[in-house]
Amino acid sequence: MTDNIRLADYLFTRLRQLGVGSIFGVPGDYNLRLLDYVVPAGLHWVGNCNELNAAYAADGYSRINGLSALITTFGVGELSAANGIAGAYAERSPVIHIVGTPPRPLQSSRALMHHTFSDGEYGRFAAMSIHITAAQTKLSDSHTAPDKIDWILQQALIHSRPVYLELPDDMPGILVSAANLKAPLAVLKVPSPVHEPQVLSRILERVYSAKQPLILVDGESVALGILDQLDTLIKSTNWPTWTSVYGKGLVNESYDNVYGLYAAGFGDQPAKEYFESADLILTFGPHYSDTNTYFWTTVPKDAAAITFKDSTIQIDSDVYRDISPADVLTQLLQTLDSSRIIKPTGPPKQEVTTSDIKDTDIIAQNNFYRLVNPIFREGDIILAETGTASYGGRSFKLPPKARFFSAVTWLSIGFMLPCTLGTALAKREQNQASGASNQTTLIIGDGSLQMTAQEISVMIKEKLNILIIIINNEGYTIERVIHGRKQPYNDVPFWRHTQALSYFGADEEHVAQNTFTAKTCGELREVLKNERVHSGQGVRIVEVIMDREDAQGPLLYLLNKQKAEEQKGSLPG
Amino acid sequence: MTDNIRLADYLFTRLRQLGVGSIFGVPGDYNLRLLDYVVPAGLHWVGNCNELNAAYAADGYSRINGLSALITTFGVGELSAANGIAGAYAERSPVIHIVGTPPRPLQSSRALMHHTFSDGEYGRFAAMSIHITAAQTKLSDSHTAPDKIDWILQQALIHSRPVYLELPDDMPGILVSAANLKAPLAVLKVPSPVHEPQVLSRILERVYSAKQPLILVDGESVALGILDQLDTLIKSTNWPTWTSVYGKGLVNESYDNVYGLYAAGFGDQPAKEYFESADLILTFGPHYSDTNTYFWTTVPKDAAAITFKDSTIQIDSDVYRDISPADVLTQLLQTLDSSRIIKPTGPPKQEVTTSDIKDTDIIAQNNFYRLVNPIFREGDIILAETGTASYGGRSFKLPPKARFFSAVTWLSIGFMLPCTLGTALAKREQNQASGASNQTTLIIGDGSLQMTAQEISVMIKEKLNILIIIINNEGYTIERVIHGRKQPYNDVPFWRHTQALSYFGADEEHVAQNTFTAKTCGELREVLKNERVHSGQGVRIVEVIMDREDAQGPLLYLLNKQKAEEQKGSLPG
Repeated sequence: MTDNIRLADYLFTRLRQLGVGSIFGVPGDYNLRLLDYVVPAGLHWVGNCNELNAAYAADGYSRINGLSALITTFGVGELSAANGIAGAYAERSPVIHIVGTPPRPLQSSRALMHHTFSDGEYGRFAAMSIHITAAQTKLSDSHTAPDKIDWILQQALIHSRPVYLELPDDMPGILVSAANLKAPLAVLKVPSPVHEPQVLSRILERVYSAKQPLILVDGESVALGILDQLDTLIKSTNWPTWTSVYGKGLVNESYDNVYGLYAAGFGDQPAKEYFESADLILTFGPHYSDTNTYFWTTVPKDAAAITFKDSTIQIDSDVYRDISPADVLTQLLQTLDSSRIIKPTGPPKQEVTTSDIKDTDIIAQNNFYRLVNPIFREGDIILAETGTASYGGRSFKLPPKARFFSAVTWLSIGFMLPCTLGTALAKREQNQASGASNQTTLIIGDGSLQMTAQEISVMIKEKLNILIIIINNEGYTIERVIHGRKQPYNDVPFWRHTQALSYFGADEEHVAQNTFTAKTCGELREVLKNERVHSGQGVRIVEVIMDREDAQGPLLYLLNKQKAEEQKGSLPG
Repeated sequence: MTDNIRLADYLFTRLRQLGVGSIFGVPGDYNLRLLDYVVPAGLHWVGNCNELNAAYAADGYSRINGLSALITTFGVGELSAANGIAGAYAERSPVIHIVGTPPRPLQSSRALMHHTFSDGEYGRFAAMSIHITAAQTKLSDSHTAPDKIDWILQQALIHSRPVYLELPDDMPGILVSAANLKAPLAVLKVPSPVHEPQVLSRILERVYSAKQPLILVDGESVALGILDQLDTLIKSTNWPTWTSVYGKGLVNESYDNVYGLYAAGFGDQPAKEYFESADLILTFGPHYSDTNTYFWTTVPKDAAAITFKDSTIQIDSDVYRDISPADVLTQLLQTLDSSRIIKPTGPPKQEVTTSDIKDTDIIAQNNFYRLVNPIFREGDIILAETGTASYGGRSFKLPPKARFFSAVTWLSIGFMLPCTLGTALAKREQNQASGASNQTTLIIGDGSLQMTAQEISVMIKEKLNILIIIINNEGYTIERVIHGRKQPYNDVPFWRHTQALSYFGADEEHVAQNTFTAKTCGELREVLKNERVHSGQGVRIVEVIMDREDAQGPLLYLLNKQKAEEQKGSLPG
């Protein structure tokens, strides 16, 4: 390594060191010079169809890879990505958003350039980013640039949230010191607080005295970096274990003691009874949004809970701050005497069967997910877009090492399709060493699909093995159940979904062999048996037709509530 | 009119009074109750495919109609629209952005709702809007809501820029006072300043003494509300008249004294000589961004210019503030003695001919626009998307009352397609009284098209008469000429554009009869002769194939500069 290095090479070397293999984004005239360095740095450039799609894809990539990068251009590009960055903030994906800004001389002379408001102001969009990123920095000179880059990357990793980096268009080629690069970027560990032994002993005391314990894994466990320890804890205690929606896919659902999703009154009654009378709920990475907690009905009571958060552990109502949950969990596992803990009898497990589903049945929310479930294999990725799919997908029994993504908090419809692209790409890169191959399956409604459909063309270009199952129910059924179930504003334009692969540029032969439709359960069974569907190459599309008002779970509850209000005359029909 | 009215009805009544006929947007669970009132209020609801497209469409509608409205949902919806709102700010489209926010009880209890960061904060996205809108307000109670609505609408009209209105989801049905509605919403006129007579006499003096005068109409003349007066001025003086890119389509190009676009060194030499030696340049609605002024080469010298801006008039280097340019212009027209002004001989006009174009020629930037030009008719709308099209389109000779939209300052690629939808819809509403019919023609590159292509399905659903000419040059040619002309990052995925109408849901018969391609000028001539193309119904698509590096004007200059740098070895090839 030489003593000096070009700025862009510095940045991209750091990203490579941190395991980033691909960068997402859209070219624009203030980032083109930066893009020159992407491929020479050994990174793959994914040119997305637009910046929102690029941000969504970067978020997805980060959820599998642990970090991702997005490059947009000043103003027009970065603002288009804003909603995607905000979603990454809400659901804790570390994405480094690199914005190519006008060259420094133009900024300091307040030139009336395009992609500005033609008023000499250059700080506006960076000011907006403060609200949706964990940290922001602006590169301005060769002296400070390397440290600023290191700092912003550390912030992304510490907070597990997006960060914002301004890189003026005249800077990618300038020389900076390469000294920092000799050591990998370190995120310093927090020192153990003096109260740590007390916390550990209080936890152990509760663990040994628990009569009806359980483990609850929520999604921020990823940000806590404790997934391996959790796996050990779940195996070594053998305690009944549930996840939230957000936590689904983070624990091995093939273990006998793992029950999958806990849904309180929207799930099965024995699980609810066990959960609500538990005297210890070891809770990891809590994220208590309405959607993730079934309107807060799945949140453990303080009296039962020991909760591991970012830098706090809460026992009963005592909050211990400045503590590393990962360290405490490690010590707990080292100290734990398994002979001293109870072997509770968990509630009975619900058996899932498809034998009651007749081939002549029309495809519906209450049969579709059970029929699809068997195609998933170890290590696959399954994504269920916000809408009916996100509720239905929660019932999947996942194979080991599968990851699952669904509606947690941000719930931006359209997100899941580009997210699918990002996750599939990250998984393929992970599999490169082992030579393994995995499928990525997206289940998405027609309303969501229309938001970001063009990104299918990038999936095709990237030759990713992605199965897209489109639920065609003629519009936003999730909105229909909330309000306006007969209102035309919840409809969407008619599209011919089976023509998507052809329009978006797949080979003609591929199109003919990889496009499917199903209206009945028998047809769906046939389609799912097809090897091209469950184990195929490239992008495949299955369109399934469902009823406009077909919904399950909380959505069915909302629909019935709406119908009752209509009958009372308090709502338009 | 009753004394009380529901809040949503109040808002929509005001919008109707101000000439808004359609509302753009996307349903979301915090705006559904508001959407219930749209159609009953006599407004047309345009459900767009996503919020960015909706914002772009609202911007386009406003450019024809003078005001538009956009409804999105909190967080996910409004942030997706941010780039479109920013563009409306940059190019002065008054768009009222109505955001359906969570119900007041949820906000005040800081509930951890979806579409938030699950942290109790509800002010973040409104804080972001401050940077990209001219005014912001939040409805919070029935007492103040009517006045707040009136105020925010006034701000949109005064500034001719977007504004931001938060409307909690529990408020559309509450009763508010209807008293304000008895009078139309008035935007107060500014009083004449004491220096107005001095300004007028200085202007008259210069007008009477000018030896080589000209009129320059720039795009902010729309915001100044002076288009009718300008038409009178251009006719009554008969002085040579040019426009900027932004001003193109605001003056009648069929007048003998109107020369069309002034492009300084990028246009014809006689015009440049006349312009640069002029002793009086009456300049209206200036907007001096790099793109709109050919890198500031078309900006008049202070010594020659009298410049009418928002609330100032500048004569030489004296700036008169707090003055109404419209009032002064009106007085000028009333006072002007035509016998006292010079009848200058303008420069010769360039004749445009297509006789040199052979049928066997491939379609190229230097022949395409001349071949297309004859299909435009009085009152049509022509849009040339950022990229090669925006430069080529500047050479069109427009028929009377035609409007033209092209790259001015914001230059967000993908904008022009949804903008086309908005302009076409506004024009159709304008034509309803007269029964007239007009075509809207979009010329767009394949790179831009991929950003927002799904909005074609809304054009189809709305049964608009839109001709889309897609320039297929396999990527972002405008980026290629700026930098990286051979770089793969400037390529885009391959799409089958001739399948767009079918994929996006047009009737099968319509698809077959309204999809065209052309590679040679002869083929293009044939296509353009087809009545379905120049005067058809619904959406029609013409794909033309051009070379990847085919560019003209400033783009050709940039391309040649890049090639020269490559030869010097200062750039990668």
